[in-house]
Amino acid sequence: MSAEKKMVEAITPMDVDFAQWYTDVCKKADLVDYSSVRGCMIIRPYGYAIWENIQKILDARFKATGHENVYMPLFIPESLLNKEKEHVQGFAPEVAWVTHGGDEKLTERLCVRPTSETLFCEHYANIIRSYRDLPKLYNQWCSVVRWEKTTRPFLRSREFLWQEGHTMHATAEDAIEETLRMLDIYADFHENDLAIPVIKGRKTESDKFAGAVATYAIEALMHDGKSLQAGTSHYFGDGFARAFGIQYTDRENKLVYPHQTSWGVSTRMIGGTIMTHGDNDGLVLPPAVAPIQIVVIPIAQHKEGVLEAARSLAAKLGEHFRVKLDDSDYTPGWKFAEYEMKGVPLRIEIGPRDIEAGQFVAVTRHNREKIVAPISEAVSVAAERLKAVRDGLYEKALANRTAHTYTCTTIEEIKTALREHGDGFVRLMWCGDEACEDSIKEQTGVGSRCIPPEEEQEKISDVCICCGKPAKHMIYFAKAY
Amino acid sequence: MSAEKKMVEAITPMDVDFAQWYTDVCKKADLVDYSSVRGCMIIRPYGYAIWENIQKILDARFKATGHENVYMPLFIPESLLNKEKEHVQGFAPEVAWVTHGGDEKLTERLCVRPTSETLFCEHYANIIRSYRDLPKLYNQWCSVVRWEKTTRPFLRSREFLWQEGHTMHATAEDAIEETLRMLDIYADFHENDLAIPVIKGRKTESDKFAGAVATYAIEALMHDGKSLQAGTSHYFGDGFARAFGIQYTDRENKLVYPHQTSWGVSTRMIGGTIMTHGDNDGLVLPPAVAPIQIVVIPIAQHKEGVLEAARSLAAKLGEHFRVKLDDSDYTPGWKFAEYEMKGVPLRIEIGPRDIEAGQFVAVTRHNREKIVAPISEAVSVAAERLKAVRDGLYEKALANRTAHTYTCTTIEEIKTALREHGDGFVRLMWCGDEACEDSIKEQTGVGSRCIPPEEEQEKISDVCICCGKPAKHMIYFAKAY
Repeated sequence: MSAEKKMVEAITPMDVDFAQWYTDVCKKADLVDYSSVRGCMIIRPYGYAIWENIQKILDARFKATGHENVYMPLFIPESLLNKEKEHVQGFAPEVAWVTHGGDEKLTERLCVRPTSETLFCEHYANIIRSYRDLPKLYNQWCSVVRWEKTTRPFLRSREFLWQEGHTMHATAEDAIEETLRMLDIYADFHENDLAIPVIKGRKTESDKFAGAVATYAIEALMHDGKSLQAGTSHYFGDGFARAFGIQYTDRENKLVYPHQTSWGVSTRMIGGTIMTHGDNDGLVLPPAVAPIQIVVIPIAQHKEGVLEAARSLAAKLGEHFRVKLDDSDYTPGWKFAEYEMKGVPLRIEIGPRDIEAGQFVAVTRHNREKIVAPISEAVSVAAERLKAVRDGLYEKALANRTAHTYTCTTIEEIKTALREHGDGFVRLMWCGDEACEDSIKEQTGVGSRCIPPEEEQEKISDVCICCGKPAKHMIYFAKAY
Repeated sequence: MSAEKKMVEAITPMDVDFAQWYTDVCKKADLVDYSSVRGCMIIRPYGYAIWENIQKILDARFKATGHENVYMPLFIPESLLNKEKEHVQGFAPEVAWVTHGGDEKLTERLCVRPTSETLFCEHYANIIRSYRDLPKLYNQWCSVVRWEKTTRPFLRSREFLWQEGHTMHATAEDAIEETLRMLDIYADFHENDLAIPVIKGRKTESDKFAGAVATYAIEALMHDGKSLQAGTSHYFGDGFARAFGIQYTDRENKLVYPHQTSWGVSTRMIGGTIMTHGDNDGLVLPPAVAPIQIVVIPIAQHKEGVLEAARSLAAKLGEHFRVKLDDSDYTPGWKFAEYEMKGVPLRIEIGPRDIEAGQFVAVTRHNREKIVAPISEAVSVAAERLKAVRDGLYEKALANRTAHTYTCTTIEEIKTALREHGDGFVRLMWCGDEACEDSIKEQTGVGSRCIPPEEEQEKISDVCICCGKPAKHMIYFAKAY
């Protein structure tokens, strides 16, 4: 951070301009910067460290469930992208095309991968022969490119970082189980680590991934009442396998097609974290992914013994947590504001009087709760406080979602709820027809998000909110990012 | 691995065709596969796991020396690449150009980054204002693209994975110190973790990185007597800073230019590891980066108690090492060959007679040394054996390099040495003129590799081996990858 910038600048309040608040937080918490590459972002050290923490946790869960990491080429030849019809129709309009290598025009243009189903399929066709080769459980961490018109840091950018899992299974049942297993891992990571409550469910036909039989997603409600699709998991059936000629010999020695899945989450999760937990003082980070979990700030640090005590406390905590001691010559007040802007979950203050009393002050970022605790118990107190932050963040987000979830049985009720209580999730009954799905969106401004699983289906009424015919599903609608 | 493939296929012997041996090892050890994306490789799980181990070790060293990770865009606008004249001349002929986004022609074409100096400089111009902002010590893990004509897995491919450090310093001294510090980290990693002895030195003027004041490299001698440039570290002076208008206010309140470095290593190191340690039975991996450090193979596993004993031993070892138990129904002989192909450093065998005697058999991959040890001491014996593998690999490689390093004072001596003892390093005295450098290469086939630091300069003779004028440097020449 530049010395000049080292003044705490105010950010636009959320209720004045939510989009500007978001951009301010991204910039002023030093998460991103812009460059001359339009639509792409620079992820700065503080932002990238959040991504590294996310990667570390998820990668361990992927490996614990038997997945292996690989790396596929960045480019996809046009003819390869064209192999699966629905897939190419979905992605061709938004890919970046490489046409020249050095001074030479390529004989076939290459797109920069928007997603890698086609590359994985080509490889699987090479390496899958027998039922003994299945399942293949591959994952890749990489960047992908989609030529978006309107971009915003983390939420929608022309290049973003993500992971994409691509798996092949002997049977449809195995593949569906995998699809839902990974959806569960995403949901669990969001709820426990990011402290973001999510709705799990299936996308409607019109909202599926290009080439999928079924797309499942987790949806999270942001501060402004819009939903963020935070992760997706797709079941492909054997469509790609047929298009790419992937076959294996089963136990009965018959040649059959395997069944496929793919699933992904991206740096978009950082955007979701900002818009779920952030406030008018800046970022608020859940401890599991915070680059700095605890900042230790000495009070009256010029006084004898203060710096030593702060250092010793920070060192002790540093054995268990990600800790930063700020002994710079800025004032404590400046430092408080700076680390609030950066969303550090727990601030620890220690000054002459604290030292005398053998204690320290701990303040949790999200609710400014201040406690005093003995230095001798620092580690256990800090652990408890960080747990309290995660739980507090989750409860706050859940309460906000509950307050902004409206169960409606008529179009008028939807309009009234949104007008009177603000944007949010609308739960309604739907006949399953795309015409009604479109009509609801046209009339109310909210679009379909997802259909929760059978066991969470609740019969709000017998009929479709739009056409009055028998209803098939309870479904969530919302405005969305 | 496919069931059909599950026969141990022989690989081409090194001395029959070294290039084919290399390709065979890459393919048959399941490190890479090809795709329809010409010149790019698929890094398969076993190959990627080696890269993950490399990343983990290096990333920790970078962080321990104060570096932070960031992520810059994949694309560089043509005008940005053009800002530093020497740099663009070096890279423009070998970049891939994106000209279209979806159906639209871009107003300015973008290259896929071949390296990111220009992007870092643009960002540094935004964030560096004062001496208090320095140093900036950034690193990025990513893939880069260079449109090579001839490609080989790991050694030279159109896309490869690497890390690129980019740092800014207040003074030239600080920047030079950083350049050499990172060179040392690379050398140390090669020698200790990859067990590859390296020569550290400065590149000649003609061989510098495009835009650098000085380029330093580590060079390693491969089995076939060719040198592999395994890592580079560049000092840029303030050339890029001037081109990009990066200035800061120093302590005397004057506006001055900072000094810059960049440094990188890539998946090429995997190629170097294969060509340094591999043999006619396949890959040989140094324990620090081996995905499987120890394979446990039960002998006569159908006999009572064998599988249990093997499992218990593998579990105990698994607490300290990366261990695989192979209890598949292949024969022990098949398994031996399979894990030799894959270069697993230590094989542990345990059968009925071993169990009775409370012992196991441990065989080190690189020299087939077989020892018998008590099960109760498995962990300490395994640790000692893995250390012995690292040391043995290093000594073997060093002995090979020593045997193929020729100190020459005439062109004729170079020719004779290469003819009689095979390719290798040639140490010679050089006047420093490019004409002589070129002439030596033309006459002998070996090109300049690097000039070792002052303290390692040894005066072989007073005069240049080529022109007979006073010599300036002792320098290493070799054929190179």
